[in-house]
Amino acid sequence: MRIGFIGLGHMGRGMAGSLIKSGHEVTVFNRTPGKSADLEAAGAKVAADVGEACDGDAVVTMLSNDEAVESVVFGRLGIIDSLRKGAVHVSSSTISIDLSDRLAAAHADAGQGYVAATVLGRPNLAAEGQLFVIAAGADEAVNAVAPLLSAVGRQTTRFGVKPSNANMVKLSVNFLFASVMESLGEAVALVAKGGIDKADYVEFLTTTMFNAPAYKTYGELAVSEQPAPVGFAAPLGFKDIRLAIAASEKLGVPMPLLSLLHDRFVELMASGGEHMDWSAIGKLAQRDAGMLDLAA
Amino acid sequence: MRIGFIGLGHMGRGMAGSLIKSGHEVTVFNRTPGKSADLEAAGAKVAADVGEACDGDAVVTMLSNDEAVESVVFGRLGIIDSLRKGAVHVSSSTISIDLSDRLAAAHADAGQGYVAATVLGRPNLAAEGQLFVIAAGADEAVNAVAPLLSAVGRQTTRFGVKPSNANMVKLSVNFLFASVMESLGEAVALVAKGGIDKADYVEFLTTTMFNAPAYKTYGELAVSEQPAPVGFAAPLGFKDIRLAIAASEKLGVPMPLLSLLHDRFVELMASGGEHMDWSAIGKLAQRDAGMLDLAA
Amino acid sequence: MRIGFIGLGHMGRGMAGSLIKSGHEVTVFNRTPGKSADLEAAGAKVAADVGEACDGDAVVTMLSNDEAVESVVFGRLGIIDSLRKGAVHVSSSTISIDLSDRLAAAHADAGQGYVAATVLGRPNLAAEGQLFVIAAGADEAVNAVAPLLSAVGRQTTRFGVKPSNANMVKLSVNFLFASVMESLGEAVALVAKGGIDKADYVEFLTTTMFNAPAYKTYGELAVSEQPAPVGFAAPLGFKDIRLAIAASEKLGVPMPLLSLLHDRFVELMASGGEHMDWSAIGKLAQRDAGMLDLAA
Amino acid sequence: MRIGFIGLGHMGRGMAGSLIKSGHEVTVFNRTPGKSADLEAAGAKVAADVGEACDGDAVVTMLSNDEAVESVVFGRLGIIDSLRKGAVHVSSSTISIDLSDRLAAAHADAGQGYVAATVLGRPNLAAEGQLFVIAAGADEAVNAVAPLLSAVGRQTTRFGVKPSNANMVKLSVNFLFASVMESLGEAVALVAKGGIDKADYVEFLTTTMFNAPAYKTYGELAVSEQPAPVGFAAPLGFKDIRLAIAASEKLGVPMPLLSLLHDRFVELMASGGEHMDWSAIGKLAQRDAGMLDLAA
Repeated sequence: MRIGFIGLGHMGRGMAGSLIKSGHEVTVFNRTPGKSADLEAAGAKVAADVGEACDGDAVVTMLSNDEAVESVVFGRLGIIDSLRKGAVHVSSSTISIDLSDRLAAAHADAGQGYVAATVLGRPNLAAEGQLFVIAAGADEAVNAVAPLLSAVGRQTTRFGVKPSNANMVKLSVNFLFASVMESLGEAVALVAKGGIDKADYVEFLTTTMFNAPAYKTYGELAVSEQPAPVGFAAPLGFKDIRLAIAASEKLGVPMPLLSLLHDRFVELMASGGEHMDWSAIGKLAQRDAGMLDLAA
Repeated sequence: MRIGFIGLGHMGRGMAGSLIKSGHEVTVFNRTPGKSADLEAAGAKVAADVGEACDGDAVVTMLSNDEAVESVVFGRLGIIDSLRKGAVHVSSSTISIDLSDRLAAAHADAGQGYVAATVLGRPNLAAEGQLFVIAAGADEAVNAVAPLLSAVGRQTTRFGVKPSNANMVKLSVNFLFASVMESLGEAVALVAKGGIDKADYVEFLTTTMFNAPAYKTYGELAVSEQPAPVGFAAPLGFKDIRLAIAASEKLGVPMPLLSLLHDRFVELMASGGEHMDWSAIGKLAQRDAGMLDLAA
Repeated sequence: MRIGFIGLGHMGRGMAGSLIKSGHEVTVFNRTPGKSADLEAAGAKVAADVGEACDGDAVVTMLSNDEAVESVVFGRLGIIDSLRKGAVHVSSSTISIDLSDRLAAAHADAGQGYVAATVLGRPNLAAEGQLFVIAAGADEAVNAVAPLLSAVGRQTTRFGVKPSNANMVKLSVNFLFASVMESLGEAVALVAKGGIDKADYVEFLTTTMFNAPAYKTYGELAVSEQPAPVGFAAPLGFKDIRLAIAASEKLGVPMPLLSLLHDRFVELMASGGEHMDWSAIGKLAQRDAGMLDLAA
Repeated sequence: MRIGFIGLGHMGRGMAGSLIKSGHEVTVFNRTPGKSADLEAAGAKVAADVGEACDGDAVVTMLSNDEAVESVVFGRLGIIDSLRKGAVHVSSSTISIDLSDRLAAAHADAGQGYVAATVLGRPNLAAEGQLFVIAAGADEAVNAVAPLLSAVGRQTTRFGVKPSNANMVKLSVNFLFASVMESLGEAVALVAKGGIDKADYVEFLTTTMFNAPAYKTYGELAVSEQPAPVGFAAPLGFKDIRLAIAASEKLGVPMPLLSLLHDRFVELMASGGEHMDWSAIGKLAQRDAGMLDLAA
């Protein structure tokens, strides 16, 4: 397929690379220049503007928030203006339900396809084409981009024809990850202050009833004496929690644990979290128990 | 080994059965009579009192709470009075850290061994000898009862020489299970009220980042339209949350998620939870969102 | 003074009436017509559009949310366009800190004064000119509108020259009111389920350590068997809680009680709160304890 | 009246002094000696043991917790053993509902009267006889000790014939006080980090809608740059929160704000709260916002 790719952060670069490796013809664009050298070397064409990235069968956006997506989609020479009829916008960013619904309507008006295809996995999995893809949209549009989706992920799970379903699932999963961090963080603080070796404890959990990637990844980070490298920045995690809250408010779903996680992110931000990995919320319980210094 | 077994509830019967199947010589006792017929048929001797169950190399207690354990351990003709020097009390009940520490001291004074060996797994795994065993105590005592532990579990994980470590780990794991129920319950309420099929959603989670027994078991229960059969009664789950709170208070570990779960159990109890499975707390979010009737 | 008044809801009508009674020359405007008959009879002039209401020394806005204020301030023929240089916009609506800051900047650019003058008190106090006024803004501007402020309130308290300070104080006070409702609601549920007469209980509190209007008003509503008449609608209260959360996020102030109140409002909205008074959150504890039916 | 008084802490000494000033014949006793010199100088007789303090018409207990009360009431030569039939035990300690119920039963069995008469007010009010008294018990018994109650308080409010009602009201009021501290603490952190003078802010609140002693006392402490002198120690406040939780669990009343306060006390205890006034929980929000150092 001829594919445009907009947004070359950690995740975007990995995904674009996987598309190239799978033999697709890829044109990349990033608002801030200087992120495309490796991809160019691997065979990507570099677009000078959004419009140039919209000259194929599909254009993927992988951007950090609603504002960034709005800025490349709407307005003069944005995606809506530039994409040909019948081509598909694949939105992989973690954005609000509201924006996803507005994108669906705008693309429908413009005769373009729109698929929300959010992904699970850290940047290394993106680069290996091993993400879990969560896709929703009209069958025709999703089918059209199936080769694209299978190039970035090991598996595509479809959640119906309403695109924002994929955004909802993604937000809910980030809520579940944060819940894992918080619960593990509290459990580790308790047993460790009680004298139990915390690494042994997490090893036990993740080889018995909690032997899932979510627990392995965040368990290891919770017990590490080092600050985690920033794979997913805390402010972005906080943004996702706020988007989930907005969805819960709109739908009328009381979610007290979600609110607790919100508080934890506010605490983290007030404690230097701006430059930390989001998994740092899993160390707040140990910090509050007087067992470690977050910043150390 | 010659083993006494006190406490023939769902878990206890399964564990005692596994001991018999492994060739141990087992004498069972239950305060309320009439629970031992199957075990007797399988080869167990039935004791008339606690003392008779203490006439071997080890005695296992699997009872519902601190009070029950205290009543069979202390006092005239209890375990302390009856067990010979050098024999070992294996305490598998989920009890408080404080009581476990007191048991350790009392058995040491009496020249008896004491091992806390708590277990993970529902009654069916107990009957199959497939529990996960969490053991702590003096090496000599734990080694002495190793054949017993390997008869009830697929794996024994040791957490040092302080017996109450095993109780602490057990309490923390029940906290983690309840956290899974709450987080899944909220996530399911959110996506389902947003129009996503909740069974598909849980299927997706448990085949990707959350593919662990904890999520499979409680995910299935969270989306079921039926009340869960009572495998672990809500009042017992509530008791364990209170024991974890007591431990966190004593150690000085703030655990806001633990408190949230406490509130959920109070809510459940005020909503007919007395006779429900503890997993019903995973349906409170759906109830509060107006999506289901707990009692139905 | 010659004063325009925009926004004739419960509070706005009362305030405009107090201005007329104090001898000011008042021109009123409401986007939805049909709310000005009484005021016209009392001597107000009725404006046909926003611009006509901006033809005096000051214009007051008392609207329900950010969007409503933005719609009358910005854009063609809005307040910015219409108010003469040196005249003052008195913003009494409960709006976000961000919007208040933007209004301050926009009026400064246009050579107009801007005072945020939020108020405490229910509609009856507005009609009697007995509100508590919280004012912030440049001294010159606040001094210029002092006669206006003293016509609507029994007392004006100034909080510095940054207008949004008045909005911050107002949001914090609504947070405190909601905290009173929640705490009283829980306390009443506890003592009443324990067998104590709840009206006696509130009478005791409000004649001893809690003898303040906040407790008298919300205590009476908490124990009433009737739903409260809608003086301040729950969706507006919820909006204010969300604005306070936005402020706390921006400033980096963790506020767990604020989050708890947020959850309560989501619960209320999911339980038919759309058409209730905001004090209904003070009955959720009794509802959850199985003691009353919210809707009854 | 001839009155025994057991428990000479800050509150007890003040109350005993007020009884003496009112002309009662008072015999005091404290388990730790050396606290009675001032009272002896003022005319009190000093008892050598509990029994000696029980030789009159009534005996008051004002002790720090359940354990202390149990130790002087039950057992050989305790109050039950020593008080004559028809005399009244006035229990002013903040104790559990359960213990109060057990005391009622035990005194009834012994033919003695039992009145729970808890009090509101700090030690200075105790010394001035200006407490608010909350009394419950059989009419005959409460009437018999009315002169005693009116000597220590400015007002006695009766809550029925079930003595533990007075304990329930007291626990609920301490919950309300802690709610005031938490809500004010969060509000002060928010407005102060936003640039508003916090003393002005509290002054405004406590002269308008929140002009009650609870807000004046705890507002002043929340904005003070100094740690509060220990009037009521944090561990005692924490104990009362736990007693309230026990009552709410037993009655089935979900109280999420009560749980939040519990977490705050655990946090405080993990941050050196052992030796602080309980009002320090009102500074946690400022601490978490990076605005002050608790210990400073």
